[in-house]
Amino acid sequence: MKKFISDNNAPVHPSVMEAMARCNEQDRNSYGADPLTSEAIDRIRALFTGEPDVYFVTTGTAANIVGLAGLLRPWESVLAAESAHINTDECGAFERLTGNKIIPVQTPDGKLTPELLAPFMATQGNEHLVEHRVVSISNVAETGVLYTKDEVRAIADFCRNNGLYLHMDGARIANACEKLGEPIHALTEGAGVDVLSFGGTKNGLMMAEAVVVFDRAKTDGYRFLRKQMMQLVSKHRFLSAQFLAYLTEDLYLKNAKAANDACHLLAEALKEENMPLVNPDSYANILFLDVDDAFVQRLAQSYPLHSEGGHLRMVTSFDTTKEDVDDIMQAVQNAKNDK
Amino acid sequence: MKKFISDNNAPVHPSVMEAMARCNEQDRNSYGADPLTSEAIDRIRALFTGEPDVYFVTTGTAANIVGLAGLLRPWESVLAAESAHINTDECGAFERLTGNKIIPVQTPDGKLTPELLAPFMATQGNEHLVEHRVVSISNVAETGVLYTKDEVRAIADFCRNNGLYLHMDGARIANACEKLGEPIHALTEGAGVDVLSFGGTKNGLMMAEAVVVFDRAKTDGYRFLRKQMMQLVSKHRFLSAQFLAYLTEDLYLKNAKAANDACHLLAEALKEENMPLVNPDSYANILFLDVDDAFVQRLAQSYPLHSEGGHLRMVTSFDTTKEDVDDIMQAVQNAKNDK
Amino acid sequence: MKKFISDNNAPVHPSVMEAMARCNEQDRNSYGADPLTSEAIDRIRALFTGEPDVYFVTTGTAANIVGLAGLLRPWESVLAAESAHINTDECGAFERLTGNKIIPVQTPDGKLTPELLAPFMATQGNEHLVEHRVVSISNVAETGVLYTKDEVRAIADFCRNNGLYLHMDGARIANACEKLGEPIHALTEGAGVDVLSFGGTKNGLMMAEAVVVFDRAKTDGYRFLRKQMMQLVSKHRFLSAQFLAYLTEDLYLKNAKAANDACHLLAEALKEENMPLVNPDSYANILFLDVDDAFVQRLAQSYPLHSEGGHLRMVTSFDTTKEDVDDIMQAVQNAKNDK
Amino acid sequence: MKKFISDNNAPVHPSVMEAMARCNEQDRNSYGADPLTSEAIDRIRALFTGEPDVYFVTTGTAANIVGLAGLLRPWESVLAAESAHINTDECGAFERLTGNKIIPVQTPDGKLTPELLAPFMATQGNEHLVEHRVVSISNVAETGVLYTKDEVRAIADFCRNNGLYLHMDGARIANACEKLGEPIHALTEGAGVDVLSFGGTKNGLMMAEAVVVFDRAKTDGYRFLRKQMMQLVSKHRFLSAQFLAYLTEDLYLKNAKAANDACHLLAEALKEENMPLVNPDSYANILFLDVDDAFVQRLAQSYPLHSEGGHLRMVTSFDTTKEDVDDIMQAVQNAKNDK
Repeated sequence: MKKFISDNNAPVHPSVMEAMARCNEQDRNSYGADPLTSEAIDRIRALFTGEPDVYFVTTGTAANIVGLAGLLRPWESVLAAESAHINTDECGAFERLTGNKIIPVQTPDGKLTPELLAPFMATQGNEHLVEHRVVSISNVAETGVLYTKDEVRAIADFCRNNGLYLHMDGARIANACEKLGEPIHALTEGAGVDVLSFGGTKNGLMMAEAVVVFDRAKTDGYRFLRKQMMQLVSKHRFLSAQFLAYLTEDLYLKNAKAANDACHLLAEALKEENMPLVNPDSYANILFLDVDDAFVQRLAQSYPLHSEGGHLRMVTSFDTTKEDVDDIMQAVQNAKNDK
Repeated sequence: MKKFISDNNAPVHPSVMEAMARCNEQDRNSYGADPLTSEAIDRIRALFTGEPDVYFVTTGTAANIVGLAGLLRPWESVLAAESAHINTDECGAFERLTGNKIIPVQTPDGKLTPELLAPFMATQGNEHLVEHRVVSISNVAETGVLYTKDEVRAIADFCRNNGLYLHMDGARIANACEKLGEPIHALTEGAGVDVLSFGGTKNGLMMAEAVVVFDRAKTDGYRFLRKQMMQLVSKHRFLSAQFLAYLTEDLYLKNAKAANDACHLLAEALKEENMPLVNPDSYANILFLDVDDAFVQRLAQSYPLHSEGGHLRMVTSFDTTKEDVDDIMQAVQNAKNDK
Repeated sequence: MKKFISDNNAPVHPSVMEAMARCNEQDRNSYGADPLTSEAIDRIRALFTGEPDVYFVTTGTAANIVGLAGLLRPWESVLAAESAHINTDECGAFERLTGNKIIPVQTPDGKLTPELLAPFMATQGNEHLVEHRVVSISNVAETGVLYTKDEVRAIADFCRNNGLYLHMDGARIANACEKLGEPIHALTEGAGVDVLSFGGTKNGLMMAEAVVVFDRAKTDGYRFLRKQMMQLVSKHRFLSAQFLAYLTEDLYLKNAKAANDACHLLAEALKEENMPLVNPDSYANILFLDVDDAFVQRLAQSYPLHSEGGHLRMVTSFDTTKEDVDDIMQAVQNAKNDK
Repeated sequence: MKKFISDNNAPVHPSVMEAMARCNEQDRNSYGADPLTSEAIDRIRALFTGEPDVYFVTTGTAANIVGLAGLLRPWESVLAAESAHINTDECGAFERLTGNKIIPVQTPDGKLTPELLAPFMATQGNEHLVEHRVVSISNVAETGVLYTKDEVRAIADFCRNNGLYLHMDGARIANACEKLGEPIHALTEGAGVDVLSFGGTKNGLMMAEAVVVFDRAKTDGYRFLRKQMMQLVSKHRFLSAQFLAYLTEDLYLKNAKAANDACHLLAEALKEENMPLVNPDSYANILFLDVDDAFVQRLAQSYPLHSEGGHLRMVTSFDTTKEDVDDIMQAVQNAKNDK
């Protein structure tokens, strides 16, 4: 099995598997009324300064949609980068399941800014149009690039000034934190995020994500929404066990560091080969190459990869090794020389 | 931890945990494009005579809703017993996520019959009313009772004669099969079921259910619907691994037998104590007692249980032992004598 | 054209047609930004003691759904009589367009009471179930019977005590007011109703209903909801003109009186013939007869009528005359004697 | 009242008012089971070569959404120009009421072409993404420009080749037909359109639009969808009467000609003044001016107008006169000279 296609292809981290096995030693109340769940929630809360509500779900799409659904009334919309996962990669789940509208914002690099958002405020209050209520950003963005703490803060300030909520799709938030050297609090709650999809599956968990609802956005409705969205797993303790392991001895950051380090190795090697990196200066564990179809196909013979937005994508995981990097670089060189 | 509250409180069967651990030994393609998934689908297909499509999901609610969604156009409805899980116990997920209507049918015991369904056919074709398109039954029913093969067949015939589909919520279908001595094919596809929620989680899996779409109901739309309903798990192989273990050496039937046998022991003991069983003649692993609130509260001191529809519910699992039965019977006697 | 089938078969009252013609004399701003609309809203407000918000729409189904949608969050439900128009006669519009669930309550006569509603409060707060938030009653009820002011008040008190809103489908509220000798305020706002569908079309208008949102339920969201629900008519002034005529010199009550008086004549005549009236003691302009299919068919030869819930329905309108009553009674006698 | 703000501000054409008055002379069956409705449907059918199904509704938004809803399964999407009314001007009605997704396509001038659509075909069949099923175009487009018969045909061919349906928002289709000198059949059914919103309200009707479903798209579902979408008006004959008048002696074309001629006068006058017309070469009854905010405000003192997409909009109606054009041109000159 070749690496670099997706961080979803990586295994579950051994500590997580062990935690799940330990969790199985006895009967436990279902639907989250068990001690492991309380402990996991407390552990997440301890990362933040407020007392956020925490809801575990099974997929990143579910985390995003449950998180957003709690912020929206029927006539309200979400502003997101055109390239956002919620807009492009969830088979219309958001529209189908919430009935709300996503307004795709054109961006140069997949990142929103207050300047890009400002023009949308001109039509607020007009009943012929949806009322914008939430801004959603992804960190790491789908284009591989990162939002710094200050960039998030700037968007959050814009949101506060305009009566909007700020949602963060953090499917790879651990990678962003590790790369930027920021604790998770600083990049989320501390920077003004209202609801966070705290990703786990792409970083060593089996299937577990957390919706973290910070103080300003808390509502009793979320627990109903999670159930209604089919995400209240009956043997819920097996989601909690994953997050407990994830937060033990900072496994989430260690896994992210392993992936990010491998990605850095890869980036340097690609630069050395003068490969056209789309995001050479801002990345965590995803790189994009601006190469032509012929190159993609030559490479695919030894290394099938995923292309997105016209660019070849390379993703590292917590288990990517230096050997894996050497291996793909060999293939890259071959594909290049075959030209 | 006390037993009998819910079959969701039971652990994951050790063979299933082992299969999941084995599944973790290497990188695998995500989203179901892996060999374990193909194998698991083939294994399920082998239980039937047609070539059903199979979609793994994480919860029973999700299995029901994905399964039903594929059968319905916007103006169509589902006829179900008023007591059906989809009607009462899923926080309105069906209406929210599909937008369709459930027509709750009043029943004496939680089971539908052609006679109960027939009056609803009188209004078909009238655009002021929803058009009934699907009948949904649960086997084991939420009231603990079973549909025999002939009873399912009778409903299926009614459906065929009236242009309807038949959906079965089989969250506990293995228990029904084992108790009735019927292979799963006979109680489902063979009896005319069009779409089956093939339950696993309540019977020894961690979180895995299968939507099985038989020939008459197959459509390319289901794979989109599963994704849109947020049920296309990225590390999908961990769902498949559960089902593979479940179908190996008939684990699903063995687990069901253990639960059913314990339930039978319990039923006999309760009869001996002249306890008022609601479903003394038709049960697999669920019993209901028609007892007053005072009794429920006395029992709750040693044995907290779940009440539903005004009746005290006792559920056995694959790991319920004779000692567990003795234990609760002691508590029952105490509660009775305290009267 | 025979009468008594539906009050929708009656013409538009001449004063209303004249008002619409007058409204056409010049260009006017669209979407309700015109003086007639302001005047019509003021005229409706003058009927009440608070300052309700008023939204004109084109159909009764739309009035109900816009009115209810503004009261509900995604996981919340409406408690309504099983026979309620929103439950049975709107082709699933409520579920499709709001995504919320209606809980049909079994009633002896189509009317809700606090006693019938009380059991549903037992499960509030349980995330596995929908959270009941609105009680919806119809006055006149679909079964022809009336809620008195005190009966509405009792339900409203129940709602206040349980954190619920009270919605009234008043498609025939003018008939109820006239029959009970109560001003509209007394039967609605004064009795604790939160949102009213103020019907017009069945009582002499062409196509115009008003959603009246009383103080406790007011929200800025309704104006967006009306647009989103496709009910913000562009030449909106033609809805307003209808309501202005309706409220001029109490036309709404005069029309209702004509219909009710004709219905009373009919009821007395039917009683004289010993015809089995289902609602002999409580009616405004609708009567139901408990007659067999053979009778229905004999009558249908001269008088086709609508049957509902197994009963033959007779409806009077503002233009039903004594001659119309004599005419149908002759047909009833013939159908009876043919037996 | 000033003209040019919107064609919704114009009155109802006198012939239409008369037809509505005549329609009121007697009782008629409700919900479209009346002779006027049959006649109106036949009259519309006579404009086409197939035998389309016809459904009258009250607003343009409703016509679009009912028309589109019948073409879509839950996971499917509509490709439309970013500037399309369904995308920008219906308060998210499409997403809320159908749950489907609109994919906004960036265009230079508000018109789609096969070239602009082609890239979206690359991802068909991928369950992570919505499946594109319908292309929706507006003629007249929201930017004022027209699609010729050949341009529609080219898009329709693209649709047929790619398994898509073609929907046309024809809120101003009569203006397009008149301007291009094409019968309505040629610009719609004859050019491959599958479903047409046949507009009336902006062209002399009071509130009436028709959903015309051509042979390839016909389904029994539409009559249910219209009811479910709250558009089955009870006194339906008053919608039919409007369309009957509209189609009598080509009133729809005569009204369109009056509006188009006035627009042409205005365009020539504006060109003479060297005003920067956005669509100088392609228009029917809408012009856009690329002027700065200061100009807009100066003009607004005597002539308040609507701006859209950063451009000042001027719309003519069937009742716009040469005097009206002179009047606004005087104001334009004043605003220009004040500069």
